[in-house]
Amino acid sequence: MKMTVNLKDRSYPILIESDALSHIDTILDVNRKLALIADDAIPKQWIQKIKDQCPNSFVIRFPQGEASKCFLQYENLLKQCIDYDMTRKDAIVAIGGGVTGDLAGFVASSYMRGIDFYNIPTTLLAQVDSSVGGKVAIDVASYKNIVGAFHQPKGVIIDPDVLSTLSQRQIHNGLVEALKTGLIQDEKLVELFEQEPLDIPQIIERSINVKRQVVEQDEKESGLRKILNFGHTIGHAIEGAYGLDTYLHGECVAMGMLFFIEDQPLKERVLSIYKRLDLPKVPDYDIDTLMSYIQHDKKSSAQTVSIVKVRQAGTFEIEEMTYEQIRNVLERGPYEK
Amino acid sequence: MKMTVNLKDRSYPILIESDALSHIDTILDVNRKLALIADDAIPKQWIQKIKDQCPNSFVIRFPQGEASKCFLQYENLLKQCIDYDMTRKDAIVAIGGGVTGDLAGFVASSYMRGIDFYNIPTTLLAQVDSSVGGKVAIDVASYKNIVGAFHQPKGVIIDPDVLSTLSQRQIHNGLVEALKTGLIQDEKLVELFEQEPLDIPQIIERSINVKRQVVEQDEKESGLRKILNFGHTIGHAIEGAYGLDTYLHGECVAMGMLFFIEDQPLKERVLSIYKRLDLPKVPDYDIDTLMSYIQHDKKSSAQTVSIVKVRQAGTFEIEEMTYEQIRNVLERGPYEK
Repeated sequence: MKMTVNLKDRSYPILIESDALSHIDTILDVNRKLALIADDAIPKQWIQKIKDQCPNSFVIRFPQGEASKCFLQYENLLKQCIDYDMTRKDAIVAIGGGVTGDLAGFVASSYMRGIDFYNIPTTLLAQVDSSVGGKVAIDVASYKNIVGAFHQPKGVIIDPDVLSTLSQRQIHNGLVEALKTGLIQDEKLVELFEQEPLDIPQIIERSINVKRQVVEQDEKESGLRKILNFGHTIGHAIEGAYGLDTYLHGECVAMGMLFFIEDQPLKERVLSIYKRLDLPKVPDYDIDTLMSYIQHDKKSSAQTVSIVKVRQAGTFEIEEMTYEQIRNVLERGPYEK
Repeated sequence: MKMTVNLKDRSYPILIESDALSHIDTILDVNRKLALIADDAIPKQWIQKIKDQCPNSFVIRFPQGEASKCFLQYENLLKQCIDYDMTRKDAIVAIGGGVTGDLAGFVASSYMRGIDFYNIPTTLLAQVDSSVGGKVAIDVASYKNIVGAFHQPKGVIIDPDVLSTLSQRQIHNGLVEALKTGLIQDEKLVELFEQEPLDIPQIIERSINVKRQVVEQDEKESGLRKILNFGHTIGHAIEGAYGLDTYLHGECVAMGMLFFIEDQPLKERVLSIYKRLDLPKVPDYDIDTLMSYIQHDKKSSAQTVSIVKVRQAGTFEIEEMTYEQIRNVLERGPYEK
C-alpha cells in the first residue's frame, strides 16, 4: 500500500509492502546518479537488490553504530558526493537503520543546499519511527542530534521482508516505538500487540499512520510532535547512563514509558506486552546519574520539561514538570502502583 | 526605512537607516542568549555598540577570510554554541561581510535543527547582496558554497554608517553588485551611478529592493533567482584563477558582466561607471585556465550553462550556452565591439 505524508510542496509517498525492495522505481526515479549510503553491517543482499535497479549508482559504506553520527563521517560522506560529481538533480538513498537515515539525510539536506533524499529503512525501529518525518542530524560529543536539519525525504520504501535478517531482539526493540505511538494516539494499535500471532506488517502500517498524522500537523516540532517523545526523557537518560551496548534504544524507551503510564490496569497490560517482547526490566538506577543526563539532554535554561503522560490507551496529556518533580518520579520508581 | 521580504512564514524585516546599529531592538529581541559571530578584523566599535544592547550576549571571533568558510570553523562555532548552552529559543547574529553571514548562517541553520539568525552586514558588498536571501554555506576544497542551506534570517540590519571604516576599494567592490542588480532589473538604479555625488544609501535601498523581489519569487533558486548570477560565470573563473588576493569578488563580477552586455552604448556607459569606481581592467587571461574553472564551478553533467545577458539596462535574457560557445566569448574578449 502507499501512504502520503501531506506537507504541501514537501509531500511524499511511503510505499509499504512485502518485496517493495524489488520495485523501488515505483516511487524513485532511478535514472540519475544515486548515492546509496549504508553502514558496513547491512546484509549485502539488500544493497545488491537495490543497486541492480539503479544503473547510475554507487555505494558508500561507513562504520556501523551511533558513533558514526559525527562531524567526521558527515564531512567524509559530503566529500564523496563531491568526488562522485553529484549534482543538484541527483539523489541520496539511505539504506539501513536510524543512524544511516539521520546521517545520510543530513548530508542530503546540505549538499548543494539540499538535494533529493530517499529512505529505505532496514530495521523495524527505523521503519516505524525515524524514517518518516524529516528529522536528520548528527551528534556532537554526548549531545544527541544537536546539529541537523528538517529535510523531508522525497519517498520512503518499507519492505517488511528485510526484517528476516534482523534478530528477535532488534525486532522487539522496534516494536516498542510502535507500541508508543499506539499508547499516545491509537488504542487499536495497542490491541494488536495482544493478538496471536503478532501481525507485524499491520503494526508497521498503523504506527506509520499515526506518525504521519502527527508530522503533518507539526512538521518542525513546535507543539504536538513532542508527544512522540513519550518515554524518551527518562529513556534517553537510561540510554546515556548504561550505554547502547547494554540496552537498545527501544528497550530504554519502554522503561521510560512505564514511569508515565498513569493508570494501573493499563500499566499491567503494557507490562504483559513487555513480557511477550522479552524486554529487560528497569535496572536499579542511580537517581543522581539519571537526573544529570536529563538536565544535560534538555539543554534548556528553563526549569521545567514537557512530559508526556498516558492515562488511557490512545490519548496523551502533556505536563510541564520541574526537575524536582521528575526526581520524585524516579524516587517512586517505574513499578510503583 | 523598513522593508519586508515576503516569504509566508519565513518573512522578515530589513531595517535600512543611518545609525540603525544603535537601536537593533527595533527588529531583534535582545532579551535572550545571543551569539555575536564576527571575524577578527571587524572594528571593535561596531561589535561593542551591538553588545552593549544585548545583556545576555557573547562574542565569537574567527579568522578573517574566505578560508574560514570550512568544516573546521563550522564545527568550531557549533561547539561554542553548545558550550554556551544555547537553546532553541536563542539566536545567532552575524556581524561582518559575506563570509561571516554564510558561515554563521549555516551554523544557525543546523544548530538544534535551526535557530533564529540575524544578519548585520558591515561591508557594502554584504549589505547589497548576500545578507538578504537566506543562502548560507561553506566551501569544500575549491568548491564554493557546496555545503549549506537555505535559511532565511529573522531580520537584517543595514547601517550605512558602518561603511565609514571600509576602504574606498571595498566600497567600490560592493557597488558592483548593486550595479549588477540595476543592469538586470532596475534602470533607475543604473542611472544613480551616473549622478554626482553617489547617493550610496539610495543605491543600497534600491539594490536590496530588487534582490528582495527576486528572492520572493524564487526563494530556492529554481528559476528567476539565477539572474543574480549575471557576470558570475566568468567572474568566478577569474576569481579562481587569480585568487582573492589579486581581485575582490565585485571586481571579478564587474569583469564578468562585460562579456555579456550585448549593447555597445550600454557597455560604454558601464565602462564609464567602472572608471569612476576605479575598477581594474580585465587582465590578459589564459582561456584554458578560465574554462577549467568554469567547468569545475558548474559541477554539472549537463553540457550547457545558463548565461544571463543584458541588452538594455533593467532587463535580462537567459541563454543556454555550450562550453564551446563560452570559449568563443572568451576568445572574443570583454572589450570587443
